[in-house]
Amino acid sequence: MSLGEFDLIARYFDRPVRRAALGIGDDCALLTPLPGMQLAVSCDMLVEGRHFLSTVDPERLGHKALAVNLSDLAACGAEPLAFTLALALPRADEAFLAGFSRGLLALADASGCELIGGDTTRGPLNICISVFGQIPVPVKGTGALLRSGARPGDDLYVSGTLGDARLALEVFRGTVSLDGTSLDAVRQAMELPQPRLALGMALRGMASSAIDVSDGLLGDLAHVLRRSGVGAVLEVDTLPLSDVMRAQPLSLQRLCALSGGDDYELLFTAPAERAAAVAAAGAAAGVAVTRIGRITEHLDAGDAQLQLIDAQGRVVIHQAPCFDHFKT
Amino acid sequence: MSLGEFDLIARYFDRPVRRAALGIGDDCALLTPLPGMQLAVSCDMLVEGRHFLSTVDPERLGHKALAVNLSDLAACGAEPLAFTLALALPRADEAFLAGFSRGLLALADASGCELIGGDTTRGPLNICISVFGQIPVPVKGTGALLRSGARPGDDLYVSGTLGDARLALEVFRGTVSLDGTSLDAVRQAMELPQPRLALGMALRGMASSAIDVSDGLLGDLAHVLRRSGVGAVLEVDTLPLSDVMRAQPLSLQRLCALSGGDDYELLFTAPAERAAAVAAAGAAAGVAVTRIGRITEHLDAGDAQLQLIDAQGRVVIHQAPCFDHFKT
Repeated sequence: MSLGEFDLIARYFDRPVRRAALGIGDDCALLTPLPGMQLAVSCDMLVEGRHFLSTVDPERLGHKALAVNLSDLAACGAEPLAFTLALALPRADEAFLAGFSRGLLALADASGCELIGGDTTRGPLNICISVFGQIPVPVKGTGALLRSGARPGDDLYVSGTLGDARLALEVFRGTVSLDGTSLDAVRQAMELPQPRLALGMALRGMASSAIDVSDGLLGDLAHVLRRSGVGAVLEVDTLPLSDVMRAQPLSLQRLCALSGGDDYELLFTAPAERAAAVAAAGAAAGVAVTRIGRITEHLDAGDAQLQLIDAQGRVVIHQAPCFDHFKT
Repeated sequence: MSLGEFDLIARYFDRPVRRAALGIGDDCALLTPLPGMQLAVSCDMLVEGRHFLSTVDPERLGHKALAVNLSDLAACGAEPLAFTLALALPRADEAFLAGFSRGLLALADASGCELIGGDTTRGPLNICISVFGQIPVPVKGTGALLRSGARPGDDLYVSGTLGDARLALEVFRGTVSLDGTSLDAVRQAMELPQPRLALGMALRGMASSAIDVSDGLLGDLAHVLRRSGVGAVLEVDTLPLSDVMRAQPLSLQRLCALSGGDDYELLFTAPAERAAAVAAAGAAAGVAVTRIGRITEHLDAGDAQLQLIDAQGRVVIHQAPCFDHFKT
């Protein structure tokens, strides 16, 4: 292995910055925030075998590593600015680095989010990205979409479709079989998630709360309910599903859509009178937006703040746990 | 193991923020930069077995993980504001987490740098911190200390003492023996580095360039020379050494001080006429500052931009390589 740490950075990652005041190559990168803008910061770490399979195409892995971070910016309504990349690699594998950096930087370019710094070291494969975005600050409060703003009577929405990433994972686990075309479709959902940045920005001042669906719909909805101090009724038969998913047994549909994880869709709430504006925001962003329930008063019933009902109004029992890195 | 991901964060890491607009618990943290301030960003990843020994006291590891990041802010002259922590753990070990968070947050408090977000996952032990600081922006250019500003005729300085961390490492490697008191002293240098934040801020507008010594003095000096397009003469007998180091053979002193790594001292340059101001800055920051050489014209001699001389003016040959994560 002849490629050194500094050559590796220069060859695959060091590119001129356009928005940052200083990029890769010094002790720190420098950002000059615009007046009236708040800085949104998020950070995600991806570990081989937990967040991605060792067989994943490095280009898709590069895309996904940045996408899951951009999805957090989307959930806050932030406009992407820049990111840092820390990378632990078992060895300086040029084929991996070429593919990984290609996928990573293609999404960075498409999102207006530039790589400004980071770290590389030898170690078990680990990808840690911190992402920075900006949000206009209104005269009062914050312009960011938060988890804490859902109010009784609000409608509950989700973008895109749910559960395909989990369906793909079940195929790789050997519990489900799909034909090649169907597998390609759900594998794309798992490996090439599309952060809903345009939708998040369009929902500023319109959505009362938002979160991105990363641990599974029910788990992420529970965060919103707890932070907002409210309950919710979720209409499970309205959940948006892909054609591949609709061809699966109902129990598998519900497992994947409710508890799947890795969706990177936006789950958000808005007052009922904003329904037309929400639909317009989805159309403008080119993303399907589906109403899947409504927010209720806090039920004073312990942790059970969520009721699931089907199209006939019957209560649905669903017990698959949401994802927890230290319990699963 | 009963401690879940969200309990773990709540118990050990989630504390109220004072400076940030929003801390842990939403999709993003929010910072509101002050007008006229540039944001400095740096990121370091620490891997067990490469950056720390598996036997290290978790409290010291928590300190060091943040200290090496704060050292990058110090090298830019930035004032610490906030940081994110991404942590991969083989298991939710409460004894480790209690010690690690205690050391981490004690240094955070002492530095005015608050934890605003992050990520936890299961995986081989990996600690990735991104740190954010602020630097006043002058009317023209940047207020940050950069690697690129050294000019011929400038004096070359280093803070503190050099090489003790490497000496401790050699003891753990079994190549050197020290008595208990001496080992405690150098082990403290290795495990509890002190980021030179006050000195870095005091050097704004005074130092022409700066870098923190993390990969070894010669390696880090080479970055400054290359970025600045200059050469240097380093007077090796002026290198500041601890009493423990002075008791070692000269060859070991030079190995540790010139190529040691993990020093986290500031290496910086300043015009000769600022010598009194530099001394005053060191005194005000409570840190020894030693002149160790001078910057020369770029030598047009390939990579060999650095001449080492001893107290008699004789050229010193030193060939130990600087640290490279993919070559060592």
